[in-house]
Amino acid sequence: MKLEGWYVTGLVEGEGCFSVSFNLRRKFSAGIETRPSFSLSLNKENLELIKALREFFECGGIRYSKFDRTYKFEVRSIKDLREKIIPHFKKFPLQGEKRRDFEAFEKICDMVARNLHLSRKSLPEIIELAYQMNPSGKRKYPKEKLLRLLAR
Amino acid sequence: MKLEGWYVTGLVEGEGCFSVSFNLRRKFSAGIETRPSFSLSLNKENLELIKALREFFECGGIRYSKFDRTYKFEVRSIKDLREKIIPHFKKFPLQGEKRRDFEAFEKICDMVARNLHLSRKSLPEIIELAYQMNPSGKRKYPKEKLLRLLAR
Repeated sequence: MKLEGWYVTGLVEGEGCFSVSFNLRRKFSAGIETRPSFSLSLNKENLELIKALREFFECGGIRYSKFDRTYKFEVRSIKDLREKIIPHFKKFPLQGEKRRDFEAFEKICDMVARNLHLSRKSLPEIIELAYQMNPSGKRKYPKEKLLRLLAR
Repeated sequence: MKLEGWYVTGLVEGEGCFSVSFNLRRKFSAGIETRPSFSLSLNKENLELIKALREFFECGGIRYSKFDRTYKFEVRSIKDLREKIIPHFKKFPLQGEKRRDFEAFEKICDMVARNLHLSRKSLPEIIELAYQMNPSGKRKYPKEKLLRLLAR
């Protein structure tokens, strides 16, 4: 199965997710780990399609979620995100509201590549951008808690 | 916004739905109405994309669901399904498991166009095909009830 570029963008428009999550980790200089991720989950009958997606992007991994009975394709490597995922969506742009998530995601990945997520001064901007994305999604920490930690 | 053919197929792979529902109606010769439908729902922020989809297919209507806060694009006309929707997915084929639903849907639409859904003899075949589609979806009537009505 070989996927077409526009087909992949259409599938991602509906089912894909650009997200940036945060974890409290002492080993990071700002005390907060920044984790950008691109993922797409499909029901278990669609494993072949998920595999084809991995081949299409030539990066990322596949995990099975027993809870959802879905397979999730996910890319977390900032290098792969910047060199493989983001360029795809520049060439075959999202047409709906997900484009806004993508644009914030691209900005954040650029900042992470410049190590700005390790700076207490720049991290608040990353957090503000990230919390504008997927507003309906669940968050481990309220934005205010993260910002308060950085202001101390 | 002008959509690409493969983009539309990718979006439908994730969010689209081919379905055939049945209603008990005395005015139909077999006592059962057969209603094929192609639909796609997106959250209300994506109204522009739903409109672009309607323009792309040059048929169908758009309805708002207050309950889901979604806009639904839907095509029910058997003529439009056979002349506009089905040919699209022959040219830009679905790549995942939804292809099976599409294939059953195409068979049913052909049978409906030949008025076989009005025949007590042929309707059971349509019902069997329809109940193989979207197995996780909710059904108004169990298959057995419909088949029993036709066997009387």
